[in-house]
Amino acid sequence: MKSVGIVVEYNPLHNGHLYHLNESKKAANADCVIAVMSGQFLQRGEPAIVPKNIRTKMALQAGADLVIELPYAFSAQHATYFAKGAVSILHSLECSALCFGSEDGDINRFTKFLDHKKRQQSLIDQEVKQMIAQGMSYPTAYSKALSQVIGLQDEFDITRPNNILGIQYIEAIDYFKSSIKPLTIKRIAADYHDETIDHTSIASATAIRKVLSTTNQELYNQYVPSSTSLELNNYLQTTKLFHSWEAYFHLLKYKCLTASAYELNNIYEAVEGLELRVLQKIKQASSFEQLMNEVKTKRYTWTRIQRLLTHILTNTSKDQMSEYLNDGHVLYIRLLGMTEKGKEYIRLKKKNLSIPIYHNVNQQNQHDLLLDVKATNTYASVLSSGLQNDLMKTEFSQYPILYQSTSKSFLKV
Amino acid sequence: MKSVGIVVEYNPLHNGHLYHLNESKKAANADCVIAVMSGQFLQRGEPAIVPKNIRTKMALQAGADLVIELPYAFSAQHATYFAKGAVSILHSLECSALCFGSEDGDINRFTKFLDHKKRQQSLIDQEVKQMIAQGMSYPTAYSKALSQVIGLQDEFDITRPNNILGIQYIEAIDYFKSSIKPLTIKRIAADYHDETIDHTSIASATAIRKVLSTTNQELYNQYVPSSTSLELNNYLQTTKLFHSWEAYFHLLKYKCLTASAYELNNIYEAVEGLELRVLQKIKQASSFEQLMNEVKTKRYTWTRIQRLLTHILTNTSKDQMSEYLNDGHVLYIRLLGMTEKGKEYIRLKKKNLSIPIYHNVNQQNQHDLLLDVKATNTYASVLSSGLQNDLMKTEFSQYPILYQSTSKSFLKV
Repeated sequence: MKSVGIVVEYNPLHNGHLYHLNESKKAANADCVIAVMSGQFLQRGEPAIVPKNIRTKMALQAGADLVIELPYAFSAQHATYFAKGAVSILHSLECSALCFGSEDGDINRFTKFLDHKKRQQSLIDQEVKQMIAQGMSYPTAYSKALSQVIGLQDEFDITRPNNILGIQYIEAIDYFKSSIKPLTIKRIAADYHDETIDHTSIASATAIRKVLSTTNQELYNQYVPSSTSLELNNYLQTTKLFHSWEAYFHLLKYKCLTASAYELNNIYEAVEGLELRVLQKIKQASSFEQLMNEVKTKRYTWTRIQRLLTHILTNTSKDQMSEYLNDGHVLYIRLLGMTEKGKEYIRLKKKNLSIPIYHNVNQQNQHDLLLDVKATNTYASVLSSGLQNDLMKTEFSQYPILYQSTSKSFLKV
Repeated sequence: MKSVGIVVEYNPLHNGHLYHLNESKKAANADCVIAVMSGQFLQRGEPAIVPKNIRTKMALQAGADLVIELPYAFSAQHATYFAKGAVSILHSLECSALCFGSEDGDINRFTKFLDHKKRQQSLIDQEVKQMIAQGMSYPTAYSKALSQVIGLQDEFDITRPNNILGIQYIEAIDYFKSSIKPLTIKRIAADYHDETIDHTSIASATAIRKVLSTTNQELYNQYVPSSTSLELNNYLQTTKLFHSWEAYFHLLKYKCLTASAYELNNIYEAVEGLELRVLQKIKQASSFEQLMNEVKTKRYTWTRIQRLLTHILTNTSKDQMSEYLNDGHVLYIRLLGMTEKGKEYIRLKKKNLSIPIYHNVNQQNQHDLLLDVKATNTYASVLSSGLQNDLMKTEFSQYPILYQSTSKSFLKV
């Protein structure tokens, strides 16, 4: 059975994602779509608007056959580890291809660029080092160094966010010496960071989340599949909220104001005194946005700071992270959802797997899944008591969610 | 100037307390009343219903000339350290007498009992050890051992809560080899733990808090001075809440569910796996009361568990506590409020003081006051953003609150 891997967050799943999923399947000529999806906290260092079980249902209804969790250690991470984690999972599952969306859309230009880059690596590293010393943030320095050293090859623009991520996927495939074939689909309309909705049916997740937070929520219906719309509405009706950093601000503040300097410094990504800057600013901040605006400097990107705050919130230490990052090799496959085809795929690949497959948390695997459970416990902390306990229990009972694509119905949620 | 010390929590200050204050002043023939008052968290291991600045105002209006904070390290503590902390402060201030309320009311029976006790100490210790081995809680074992070994001397009932505390005060005076004269006032009506209001003007603080949580809040007016009533009403109107454990339950749960086993075990009073029992039970609990009922065993008293939960909430470690407990010797005098007479008293005693007097938190003393500031930060975490920041700022700007007793007005709040 031929499979294609896609790496997603679905925050929320929209028509652009649906297009990417379908085109990926076609491009790879695949029978089975494997979606590696971030759990409760995302790459930009923020909580997903709805929990992973809801986003898993969105993914299955959109056509994914397997939904695998990108563990916390890899999901709330900069692009390199994020990509390594996802590729590590797809490589373990003997996935045939990985297809990512990009601004460029031509895989040959990616591979050509990487050939250039390999030859110039030491020069690039040197440039990056110099620019960081001048106070530039790493991502800016990196993309600046690339353009300076390699230049614009065949008009391939390395500064676009999805092109950057694509580069990381291909480098990760290289890192694992994997036979996964990299493919790319050109993103249609809607830039990653676009905040406005102006296209007829495609809008960025950022723009959709912005609309979600307004009163006129019906506005997003034309940009998302009806299944997404239904799941979002159901969640909102039950919980009365979409998750955002603002909802967690009081917990973050409580945590910062009761932690010792030693404890804060132990948190992953707490370097160069950034955590002390957070502590100093949070005392007077009365909202998350205010805190971010106060903490932000040229040296640290918005997402870099948000990731630190995520790790403070979930109390994830440097030692813990280093154990679970395991040099990029994911320690387990966490199965969030599957169709019958996905189930069959797992059955076929199981015997070759070098890492365990987990459906839920139990006595035996609880240490492996510690960070993911802690992420869910943290994520659930803003819900009312009953709903909080329900969401915490999903780790132990709900997964994998089974979806019958022929009857379009869930067999177990 | 002759002074009398009283040890109080004023949660809230009621007519019984007012009686105790006035009678103490008479009994000691004192010019100046020094109230050593618990800060934000109390001896029973719970948040005070209103913050210490409000309770300081109550104390000054009731006739206290000096209000000194019993630091966090001593206030959320079992009776021995609680008493040692208070006596350590009064001893430093060269207080002439300490007058406590008791069920017995005759100081001679206290001293006589203690003479007996001293002679039988090794036998008592042995009995306590045996009873604890049988699964009894320490306070129960201790009072049982006392009755068994010493028996009911002159009908002196050592099992009554305020008699127990009285014994601890006298033992602490002994411990510091202090010349403070112990005095006692018989408590009129209302037992410490009484939950009903039936006396005409005296009710226990427990009963008053119970009424406060009902809709018919006017009910308590006859049991508290009008100044207390006013302060309570003002606080409620501003913040819309009285502080209770239930308000902090979601923070406690968040903290437990994100802390590592190692971190929880480092918390003060986390012994014999009690913290793991808390962790296990809190996962399914949906209220503080439910948690307490689930955690409670014969071995641990309700207050013992509440104190552990307080230290988990404030993130107070064994190492920190041992530093600040300093074998019972309080490290500083934290001045919360004073009248002109109180100010004069401090002026007279200042030169003999072996420990510093602090009015507020600054660069120099912030390490000394760390636990108290952390207690206030934690305590403020359930307030809305603006009020939270205001309360946190009181540590840096508000104290000491100045009260002019002749004009009955606050000069600085």
